[in-house]
Amino acid sequence: MNDPHQPPGQRLPGDLESRVASLGALFEPRSVAVIGASDDPIRIGGRPLRYLKRQGFRGAVYPVNPRREQVQGLKAYASIEAIPGPVDVAIIALPAEATVEAVRACAAKGVRVALIFSAGFAETGEAGQARQSEAVAIARAAGMRLLGPNCLGSFNNFDGFYSTFASAFDLQAPVPGPVSVLSQSGACGSHLCYLLRERGIGVGYFATTGNEADVEIGEALLWMLRSPRVKVVALFAETIRDGASFIAALAEARRLRKTLVVLKVARSSIGASAAASHTGALAGQDAVFDAILRQFGACRARSTDHLVDVLEACALGVYPADRRLGIYTVSGGQGIQAADAAETDGLEVSPLPESGRQKILSLLPFSAPNNPIDVTAQVTNEESLIGRTLEIALAEGGYPAMVCLLSTLPEAPRFADPVLASLRALRERFPDRLIVPVFAAPPEVVQRFREAGFAVYRDVDAAVAALASMAQLGEWLHASGQAGTASTEGSGAAAESEAAEALAVLPPVLDEQSAKAILARAGIPVPCEVLARDARAAREAAQALAQPVAIKIVSPDIAHKTEVGGVVLGLSTPEEVERETEAMFARISRACPQARVSGVLVTPMLGGGIETILGVFRDPVFGPVVMFGLGGVLVEVLRDVSFRLAPFDRAEARAMMTELRAFKLLQGVRGAPPRDLNAIAHALARLSQFAHANRERITEIDVNPFLAMPEGEGAVALDALIVAREPDVSVQTSVQVTPS
Amino acid sequence: MNDPHQPPGQRLPGDLESRVASLGALFEPRSVAVIGASDDPIRIGGRPLRYLKRQGFRGAVYPVNPRREQVQGLKAYASIEAIPGPVDVAIIALPAEATVEAVRACAAKGVRVALIFSAGFAETGEAGQARQSEAVAIARAAGMRLLGPNCLGSFNNFDGFYSTFASAFDLQAPVPGPVSVLSQSGACGSHLCYLLRERGIGVGYFATTGNEADVEIGEALLWMLRSPRVKVVALFAETIRDGASFIAALAEARRLRKTLVVLKVARSSIGASAAASHTGALAGQDAVFDAILRQFGACRARSTDHLVDVLEACALGVYPADRRLGIYTVSGGQGIQAADAAETDGLEVSPLPESGRQKILSLLPFSAPNNPIDVTAQVTNEESLIGRTLEIALAEGGYPAMVCLLSTLPEAPRFADPVLASLRALRERFPDRLIVPVFAAPPEVVQRFREAGFAVYRDVDAAVAALASMAQLGEWLHASGQAGTASTEGSGAAAESEAAEALAVLPPVLDEQSAKAILARAGIPVPCEVLARDARAAREAAQALAQPVAIKIVSPDIAHKTEVGGVVLGLSTPEEVERETEAMFARISRACPQARVSGVLVTPMLGGGIETILGVFRDPVFGPVVMFGLGGVLVEVLRDVSFRLAPFDRAEARAMMTELRAFKLLQGVRGAPPRDLNAIAHALARLSQFAHANRERITEIDVNPFLAMPEGEGAVALDALIVAREPDVSVQTSVQVTPS
Repeated sequence: MNDPHQPPGQRLPGDLESRVASLGALFEPRSVAVIGASDDPIRIGGRPLRYLKRQGFRGAVYPVNPRREQVQGLKAYASIEAIPGPVDVAIIALPAEATVEAVRACAAKGVRVALIFSAGFAETGEAGQARQSEAVAIARAAGMRLLGPNCLGSFNNFDGFYSTFASAFDLQAPVPGPVSVLSQSGACGSHLCYLLRERGIGVGYFATTGNEADVEIGEALLWMLRSPRVKVVALFAETIRDGASFIAALAEARRLRKTLVVLKVARSSIGASAAASHTGALAGQDAVFDAILRQFGACRARSTDHLVDVLEACALGVYPADRRLGIYTVSGGQGIQAADAAETDGLEVSPLPESGRQKILSLLPFSAPNNPIDVTAQVTNEESLIGRTLEIALAEGGYPAMVCLLSTLPEAPRFADPVLASLRALRERFPDRLIVPVFAAPPEVVQRFREAGFAVYRDVDAAVAALASMAQLGEWLHASGQAGTASTEGSGAAAESEAAEALAVLPPVLDEQSAKAILARAGIPVPCEVLARDARAAREAAQALAQPVAIKIVSPDIAHKTEVGGVVLGLSTPEEVERETEAMFARISRACPQARVSGVLVTPMLGGGIETILGVFRDPVFGPVVMFGLGGVLVEVLRDVSFRLAPFDRAEARAMMTELRAFKLLQGVRGAPPRDLNAIAHALARLSQFAHANRERITEIDVNPFLAMPEGEGAVALDALIVAREPDVSVQTSVQVTPS
Repeated sequence: MNDPHQPPGQRLPGDLESRVASLGALFEPRSVAVIGASDDPIRIGGRPLRYLKRQGFRGAVYPVNPRREQVQGLKAYASIEAIPGPVDVAIIALPAEATVEAVRACAAKGVRVALIFSAGFAETGEAGQARQSEAVAIARAAGMRLLGPNCLGSFNNFDGFYSTFASAFDLQAPVPGPVSVLSQSGACGSHLCYLLRERGIGVGYFATTGNEADVEIGEALLWMLRSPRVKVVALFAETIRDGASFIAALAEARRLRKTLVVLKVARSSIGASAAASHTGALAGQDAVFDAILRQFGACRARSTDHLVDVLEACALGVYPADRRLGIYTVSGGQGIQAADAAETDGLEVSPLPESGRQKILSLLPFSAPNNPIDVTAQVTNEESLIGRTLEIALAEGGYPAMVCLLSTLPEAPRFADPVLASLRALRERFPDRLIVPVFAAPPEVVQRFREAGFAVYRDVDAAVAALASMAQLGEWLHASGQAGTASTEGSGAAAESEAAEALAVLPPVLDEQSAKAILARAGIPVPCEVLARDARAAREAAQALAQPVAIKIVSPDIAHKTEVGGVVLGLSTPEEVERETEAMFARISRACPQARVSGVLVTPMLGGGIETILGVFRDPVFGPVVMFGLGGVLVEVLRDVSFRLAPFDRAEARAMMTELRAFKLLQGVRGAPPRDLNAIAHALARLSQFAHANRERITEIDVNPFLAMPEGEGAVALDALIVAREPDVSVQTSVQVTPS
């Protein structure tokens, strides 16, 4: 089962390595006990036994039931202690009230993983929370892992190990395969297995984590990704509790070139509050989560259907090399529909070269073989025409992905047989192309195509959406190395090397000048400006600077300078600067008599720039996140900002910038020059590295406005704010990064 | 078959009334000839005969085939002339080359409608276009209608009249029902019938219009909507060729309270160019089309799946009274998913009242009956619990629409039977509620629910999207009268009455002052400003106005005033005004020596407003369209503008304003006051009425900036441009509208 081509896993930080390793006992156990085992195979305590028997688990199975000699034909034990051999997994199929005692018994027995099915824990209020905490404390003290509570269990389909009471497997179990399913929601996880089975997609491992009292999604994800039996993981998540393990898992997927497709719910405010009531945790900011998946090359599914559609294609293991899409169609209307969807989803509908056009036109004179390659109903005149023209389209068009829109033709065996034969032959000839038939036909016809190893879709838009995700995954998988990916701690993916001096002490709120000085040392450009202690020094400073200048009060006690008359713009002479500085000191001492004033900042007025905002905030789950946007209230109203988890490099910063809807404004519109995108990208990357290095010390950074000048003229921070996490902690400005 | 409750149709303009009436012969004929009739029932000339026989058409059927005595058991005729009785419909199943002669023979015979299946006409180039034009000329001269060419034909499923060669009906025909299908694309239309049949949704009439040489989508739509047998029309469109008939049809649907669901493709540039190659016509601007559908209360489907999902619910005839959605779920995760989708799609997930919560909690102590009403897996303990808790949710929550997320439970008959029984009982008790089960199960289980009259969905997001469309349709259907709807010609839906004087003559481009004067008479507020012929007059004007003022050059030859120094802002004294006016005249006579200068406009400087843009342009298909947006380059980059077909009333203008993503800015953010939305709405409505009244004379109107002042302070046009269609045509400013 081991894949010699799989690269070695990364060394995980802290105790994560051992936490992940301990899940081997959950996913590949040699023995299992069922506490509360039932003879009734559809009861919660009965289903796991039934499944273990039906699926042929070869390890030891120990029903625990003090009132019976045998359960479902297996010898029963009065208690967990009574079991003779070691127990890797103990399934606790008891009501919530009886669970803590069972956990205690398992711990005493030396069970390696206990699974708790029952609800009635943290999700139901204080009493439940107390019960859950007690169970966790017992397990931790004994070095035993806990899955659940309030979960549907897990399975390992390769070895027939079923530790679940999901009714979705009553009639039929999934077949083993390269896709594994991990879900916080039990019902959604088993529902997904059901949908995959319907499409003939094999599922290897399956786990639901429920309340995540102990085992949480990130470590389970890491275990699955590291298994050589797993190529693709489908994840259903409501809330990420442990940012570090989740990020480590994302990085591991990238490193091992495995595919992760995520359906993350609780996007909306209502959804998030429902998630809170459901799992006892708050859902993170959805836009941040979305950006992180993109940053690490994981696919986010739009809906369950989209998730399954993408998995169906992933299971084939062919990822398009680029974003070009060929649209082969027997219906002009569907061809247009696909072209629309391709534009929406960012695929390129590049035209069929003239030689290919001519070859198809010679076979089908009324066709329109551009792209969409519309072969029209003419193609139905003779059964072999579809295969022949499709081959021309693939050979001449070179499309790495191709949808074949066949409407309802394959309903008739007259068409289904030759089409399927052609598709098989074309796959032989073009093994690196993803060729996807799209049609509506009875289930048995669809099944024939699926059994022949094709992903089959019914809906044109759904097919294009799936291929767009595949192209995106392909881009990530084919990208060399890990460039563009944020690092996990110490892995040094941030690829620009520079060192700055270390700062000693940081007050809780920094004045503008201090913040700018710190950021300047971290590599963020600031204007050439002078702190003047008095009016005369201000005049002298102004003499050295290009006119006009602005003056701004400098005080750690004044956060909003404009409101107290602490900013004067557009001063043209040194004399004016002196006079206005005096007037400002007078105003401030009236308005804020208590404020400590260090002086005024004399700063050149810069024109010709576009105002942008660079920001950093601490996501409660993932840590420092960098934000980028344009200045102005309209941007705020439209929420046109993009995010990345710190740290990242300039390439990632560029990607982040292009995600703005208003990005065109930076590229130059209406005759305006393009902005210095390199300078912005550099500043974003440096800011991210600074934020990451100081992640324990800084709560918030605001570089606003950050003025983006025309190309080649750089960009500069006109104002800056740093909010420290607590008073007087030192800030690390020497960012140690690996040279690229 | 006549429905006494159907209100009478509107009187259609021009010859549209008679064009629509003439389609009765196409959809409900008494006799049909098949020219090129074939004995082989799967050939193009054979299928229609096979279908007519199989579906039991009771009218006369005349195969035309000079080489046979009988075709498919029916007496054959050597030619169309040889047929003894009258012929309502003649199906021409011949190659393109033979078609024109057949059309001529049909015309001579007095056939009422000829159907041309063959491709090889306008879609293939010049020769084909000539052939098509000739066929149309012959038909028009004889008063005969033409359907096609390059179409798949039509059917009337109530009377078994099948005039189509669509292979999608080979194995099985659709059943008759309240939904009719109209499609420009033959393949997409028959594909849609196939998908509807799979779901057990009945189709009444079906027509595909192909190249639309004569019969086009608008008139066919009007005919279908007026049929009392039709409740819902599904339209697949690539391009609208006749704006007037399409708008008349939209208005008719609204008037008759029938549902129109539209899948319009060719949204994208690639899609539109594919449409051009496919149908020989240009696709209109998608955003305008989208706005028009909203304006007239027609639903736009996002994809084929969404179209069929909406039709499945429409076929039940229950439209939610408002946007509240109840989410009943056995899976917490799916409940959150539905809540996310509801927020995205604009449905309200209002909480279950406390009384309902308590009732459900008393049955299911671990449930979370908020909304989502998460009954958890607990509900599976006893079969009747789903029905009992669902009843509580409906009775206490009062939700007009309810999704019941059942995961895979109905796969087991143990759950399917009681759930279905409960749903039936609940529908009896709550006949005006739309209760929608969502689950994955084998086709036979789904079919049982569908046969019992329920719309059944598999995917949570798809179900919510369908219910969101139903709620939108419900809002439109329940809205009283036609308020908010744009009028078709002369129907006077624009509901605000005011008259302005008529203008006599309009030069091709109007100078700012003339344009403002015209718009002022049409009801658009302009500033109190004065045209001064010379510097002294400018000074006198400034004395009468509040300071500061601006001066702007007035010349029909200067379009871009700023660029030639023709605008000076912020003048504080009359003397300054005089001096600057002189300087401006001197500048202009140097910069534009040929320009005719009428003087300067002296205008008060207005502050405190938000710049918006009101615009009018002529859509080539639909005529004058009004645009609204905020000022500034960012809005332009983001394309954050909304559209409406002129004319419309203030309520519609309000709806139009709220469609801006940046609408919040007008409502007041960051402490800024809300803007005078009434004043903007009034101006938009008046502009639309003016544009409609002068639709033959005006190409473009730009009111930019239109300054939106704080609430109660109005709004005012700071600049305006009117571009006439041709020189010296008179502009009609007295807008005749019916009082509301």
